[in-house]
Amino acid sequence: MTGSKFSFQLDCPVPKFDFDMITLGHGSGGLLTHRLLDAGVFTVFDNDYLREAHDGAYLDLQGKTAFTTDSFVVSPILFPGGNIGELAVNGTVNDVAMCGGIPKFLSLSFILEEGLKMDTFSTILQGVQNACLAAGVQIVTGDTKVVEKGKGDQVFINTTGLGPVHTKANIHMSRVRPGDVVITSGLVATHGIAIMSVREGLEFETVLLSDTTNLNGLVMELLDAFGEDIHFFRDPTRGGVASALNEVTKSIKVGIDLDQRSIPMEEGVEGACEMLGLDPLYVANEGILITIVQREKSDAILHLMRSHEKGKNASIIGEVTEEHPGQVVIRSTIGGRRVVQMLAGEQLPRIC
Amino acid sequence: MTGSKFSFQLDCPVPKFDFDMITLGHGSGGLLTHRLLDAGVFTVFDNDYLREAHDGAYLDLQGKTAFTTDSFVVSPILFPGGNIGELAVNGTVNDVAMCGGIPKFLSLSFILEEGLKMDTFSTILQGVQNACLAAGVQIVTGDTKVVEKGKGDQVFINTTGLGPVHTKANIHMSRVRPGDVVITSGLVATHGIAIMSVREGLEFETVLLSDTTNLNGLVMELLDAFGEDIHFFRDPTRGGVASALNEVTKSIKVGIDLDQRSIPMEEGVEGACEMLGLDPLYVANEGILITIVQREKSDAILHLMRSHEKGKNASIIGEVTEEHPGQVVIRSTIGGRRVVQMLAGEQLPRIC
Repeated sequence: MTGSKFSFQLDCPVPKFDFDMITLGHGSGGLLTHRLLDAGVFTVFDNDYLREAHDGAYLDLQGKTAFTTDSFVVSPILFPGGNIGELAVNGTVNDVAMCGGIPKFLSLSFILEEGLKMDTFSTILQGVQNACLAAGVQIVTGDTKVVEKGKGDQVFINTTGLGPVHTKANIHMSRVRPGDVVITSGLVATHGIAIMSVREGLEFETVLLSDTTNLNGLVMELLDAFGEDIHFFRDPTRGGVASALNEVTKSIKVGIDLDQRSIPMEEGVEGACEMLGLDPLYVANEGILITIVQREKSDAILHLMRSHEKGKNASIIGEVTEEHPGQVVIRSTIGGRRVVQMLAGEQLPRIC
Repeated sequence: MTGSKFSFQLDCPVPKFDFDMITLGHGSGGLLTHRLLDAGVFTVFDNDYLREAHDGAYLDLQGKTAFTTDSFVVSPILFPGGNIGELAVNGTVNDVAMCGGIPKFLSLSFILEEGLKMDTFSTILQGVQNACLAAGVQIVTGDTKVVEKGKGDQVFINTTGLGPVHTKANIHMSRVRPGDVVITSGLVATHGIAIMSVREGLEFETVLLSDTTNLNGLVMELLDAFGEDIHFFRDPTRGGVASALNEVTKSIKVGIDLDQRSIPMEEGVEGACEMLGLDPLYVANEGILITIVQREKSDAILHLMRSHEKGKNASIIGEVTEEHPGQVVIRSTIGGRRVVQMLAGEQLPRIC
């Protein structure tokens, strides 16, 4: 199977395509589209919502609901530690969770390039479904379009997510206050370096794997236990930790002080960043979140995070301050201080 | 302005970009992404949901909700009668309406190709917003990705829609019964022929315009007045009327008889189909819907449709029958009968 060395254990049903590659006819809305859906999508994602086979899904929703969307254009589509299908589910699951939402329902929309191999598409479909099973969400509606060879790049995916907001959640940038503590749930820069290493054909002593995963379980435990003491969540994907924290300081006119020594990183990732001349604070992340919390509860929050599989490398990395409003400032390992700007250009295109 | 001859009256705020074209940096998640959003998206779509500037939107939803998604890859992106932005809003608004939903909230996700001209993007953003204003929906969350030149095709859009289901709606394929009447709300094949004519550089006596528009107002009036007597709605986009009706006959094992003489078509469209050797039943539609209704109410339903701006060309085109289950059969203008299959290949790729 294409890229199978990067695939994890596949538990869901395997699609049974009786053709080798995607053609324009699979986007026609006619016979070939139905064949693609019946053999692939409906086999893999079988559930009551999809079985309705309507133009959309009927959901029963009550009250405050989080609604998020993301398109995924990561290249390559199969990468060490995952594939674009898993990434698309985890990314949207995490965006719902960052709003304090409990992710439940996802839409799934493909833009496929003519000529895409069906075994690659199968791997991606299974990546989607296994990520859904792991996160406890369902694909309830979808769409498939096909573009001519040379007008796309194998597979683009849009996922849009819905979920009720946790009753104890009160997540908003405006709740961040001087004195608050900034915590990362895990190792920084892992995903970006994994993608870059495979894309550039770099060889390191150990294979660097993307950490793409869902974080909704961790978020729900944090909200259950600490509710309003959690002021803010953000998954620092494109633009990295630097851009995510600059959004906060620039929006609400506070400063943030970071301590470089406390920013956790895998040894291989740190080495790769040094070798490539990349600042890890600008490298895209997938499997971690940043949270900004009430100082008095920060130790207890850190303790809970470290007891959770998805937060075992959690670390307090800084604090919110009244000083230097609008700026993120980092104290380096040798004691110097510098301003960390928002990402200005583009370091690693198509990282998610 | 690029393609301005195809643009309609623009009422919404005009984006103020201080750069000429999209670069990879606009998808970085950093400074350039923020500049793109501030100058364009937030200027044009300004509303309370977007002003939250969160990773997603908080919506207050109660009860049965319709949820639909579609990606749009139409080529060209500016076409006679509309652009990909309007099409993306109208398409998803109509999909929600076809479920009996009252469209309220849309997500909007762009995949842009490096080098896209900002005046083209402005036209599309304004197309989105004007279509939203016309349909009474809001863009509440979004995403923007950029791919390298040659890895996309200017602009792809995903819109995902939400709306409460009309309390009187009971729309489902399984409610279709022999004896029911099949109605089109308007002229067939208009959109597909408009796109094809501009794509192929065909010249006709009159310019053929796409009929892309929202149908939610018409649907709501029908549901208000006739409720459960409306058994089924479908917008016969890709695959045309033939594929939409074949889905019904094949799913629930009924037959459908169509009368070719009663299928309304613009004269120029009919001529173009003849010239190009296209069967209009397979040509994609945008601004019309097909409904299948209780026979006793069909005249009243037709009357209401014809009194509505979006249904003034409505026509009863056939009926559901116990005969030839699984098949759509058409009686031609000269009295012969033939089976209308589902679209087998691909007639007009990237029509929506």
